[in-house]
Parts: sequence; structure tokens; C-alpha cells
Amino acid sequence: MKLYANEVSSATSRVRIALAVKGLAVDVQPVTIFGDAAQSRQAAYRAINPQGLVPALETDAGELITQSLAIIEYLDERFRTPPLLPADPEDRAFARAVALAIASEIHALLPPRVAARLSQIPGMDADGITAWVRHWVDVGLTAVEDRLAARRTGPYVVGNVPTIADIYLFPQVISAARMGFDVAQRWPNIAEIVARLHDIPAFAQNAPAPRT
Amino acid sequence: MKLYANEVSSATSRVRIALAVKGLAVDVQPVTIFGDAAQSRQAAYRAINPQGLVPALETDAGELITQSLAIIEYLDERFRTPPLLPADPEDRAFARAVALAIASEIHALLPPRVAARLSQIPGMDADGITAWVRHWVDVGLTAVEDRLAARRTGPYVVGNVPTIADIYLFPQVISAARMGFDVAQRWPNIAEIVARLHDIPAFAQNAPAPRT
Repeated sequence: MKLYANEVSSATSRVRIALAVKGLAVDVQPVTIFGDAAQSRQAAYRAINPQGLVPALETDAGELITQSLAIIEYLDERFRTPPLLPADPEDRAFARAVALAIASEIHALLPPRVAARLSQIPGMDADGITAWVRHWVDVGLTAVEDRLAARRTGPYVVGNVPTIADIYLFPQVISAARMGFDVAQRWPNIAEIVARLHDIPAFAQNAPAPRT
Repeated sequence: MKLYANEVSSATSRVRIALAVKGLAVDVQPVTIFGDAAQSRQAAYRAINPQGLVPALETDAGELITQSLAIIEYLDERFRTPPLLPADPEDRAFARAVALAIASEIHALLPPRVAARLSQIPGMDADGITAWVRHWVDVGLTAVEDRLAARRTGPYVVGNVPTIADIYLFPQVISAARMGFDVAQRWPNIAEIVARLHDIPAFAQNAPAPRT
């Protein structure tokens, strides 16, 4: 399998963590997504994936799978051990809901193409874009914290082993900490879980790189 | 089961279609999400779901499941016939990727809370918000059309029966048509699929209501 990836991308980080948890090796193809050179350097990749987004997984059958959750569910169905979803149906739903809340209510509002569109609004400047990003991280992680405070019973988001929910939480919280949020003070359940995830090599070794 | 729902919500429409395809009856609880009265009328619902978002499914075990895709995957795992995902792993991944592209790259950028935040930007007015909404619908459905043009082999998004991909496509395309997009001219693969879905009662009877 071939993974089209970018080292600063949170969505790429999720897939790399999933691969590492399952002990799967892939051929990693770096894709430039930020900066002025991104457009031209991407030409070859856009012939493969017209949207130019990462991550994308090329299977051994030659299928290109986009969207991090579709990739991770595919990996979980093809390579069952260890599972990335709990066994209980309600627990599975909660793990997916936390992953989707992070993907749709935080991360979907922050990618480069959204920032580029915002910057075209008269009256929007770099400070305004920073405030936009911080707002959705703040509101979104607070909503996740509230759900965790009400439902969590084990050391991770659901039960005793990390699931897709932890895989989505980890890069998003690293990104929030880099923005200067006091994670431990604001979101204690999240902070406790993420501290534990930092001790797991599959997570720690696949964190998103800082954006330079 | 109890479904917290709003008749104009695309995300609610997805879950209602999934329930109808499977022939499942639920107790529908209407939730007000738009307009000045939404905040006060929502007080009772916010005691159940602090974010106040719909849809949310309360299971017979008393678990509240949020996020439409988590709800639909739960329904598909609990009530297996007819399945909402194809059998082949690559086909399943493609169906999920289309659903997630619509959820994360279109719908996530359009909800009332995002429009409310945009309207706080100096220089942003109603026309600017309309342009924002149209931009993401346009870019997002074009990306889906490109994937369909390259991969589709049957009458629906994947193969010979509707899947979660069609469930996500249907309300988003109805919304695009209401915005005045010429769907048939712009996105012929999408238009052909959605025309077929309109003939299926489980879809047609659960389309989102027009926003008044």
C-alpha cells in the first residue's frame, strides 16, 4: 500500500497512527500542501488525486481511498488486529461520534483552503484568521470534553484500549497546545487521555510535525 | 428508539432516510434549530444534548448517539437488512469517502453556527454569506462529480443499490438545487443518481423541508 502524506497534516497523522497501531508498513509518498510552492509541486499528485488533499491511501488493488475515516475503517476491516473500534455497538457509536465531532466541527473549519477563502473577505486579516481557528478549536474541544466528562469510564475515550476516537483526539490536541491553549486546565479529561497516548510509541512517533 | 430531529436539517434527513430504507420506526422529537426562538426553545433539549445539535438518536438502552454517520453506522450494525454499505472493502471505502467528503468539505462549512460566526466579521453581509455557502457547495459537489465520473459503474454511487454515499448525496443536492444551481448541467453523474433516488419512497419522503 502507498500513503500520500504530509508531515504537518493532522489528518495524515491519524492514518499513520492507525497503521502503526496495526503494525502495517506502507510506502509513504510526501505531498506538499502548504506554501507558495504547493500548487506547482502538487501537479504530479493531482493527476492521481484531483483535489490534491492528503491523506490518500492507494491499496494493493490500485484503489485510491480518500478521507481519513474511510481509510481507517478500511484498514480496520482488512487488518482486524488489534481492532480500532470497540466491540459493543453503543461504544462503537460513541467512538465514531467523537472522531466525527473532531473531523466535522473542528478540523473541517481549519484547512488551508478555508483560511484562503476567509482571507478574501474584506476586513479579514491574519489576526482574524487566528481568532477563527482558535474559536472552533475552543468550542469543539469543549464539546468533546463535556461528552467525555459525562460518559468516560476507562483510561481512554472508550474503555481500556485506544480507539479511533483517541486517534482523532491526539493530533487535534497537540495542535491546540501549540496554539497556546492550556489543555490541562481547560479540558482535564482530554488532557489526561492525551498524556497517556504520548506514552504509546504508535501515537508519539506519528504526531503531526509543527508547522514552520 | 427516539430521534431528535429538525425537518429542514440535511443531517436529520440522512438519518431518516437510513431508518426508512431499513423499515425502522422511531419516536421523532422535533428540535428547533433556526431563528430567534431556537435558543430558548432548545433549553429542554440542551439538558439532553448540551451542544443542541441534531440529529441525535437515543437508543433503547438510553445511549445518546450524535453525528449522523455514527448513527447510520450504528443502525447498519444493529439492523443488517438491507445493508447500507457494499460488501467489497474497496467499495465500502469509496461509499464512506463520498459520504465524508459531503459531510466534511461541504456541510461542515454551512451550519447556522458557522454563518453566525462569519456574520461577525467586519465587512461580511448576507450576500457574503450566500457567496460563502455557494462556494463550498460548488467546489465540493464538483469534487464528488469528478470521483463519480472516474469510478461509477452502476445506477447509484456504488453498484446497484443505494448506500450511505447516496444517503449523503441526496439532501445536499436538493439543497444545491434550491440555491439555484443547475445540477443537471454542472454535475451530470450526480444529477442522474439523484433523479433515481427521487423515485425511491424512503428517499423522497425524507428529503429536508425547504428553509422558510
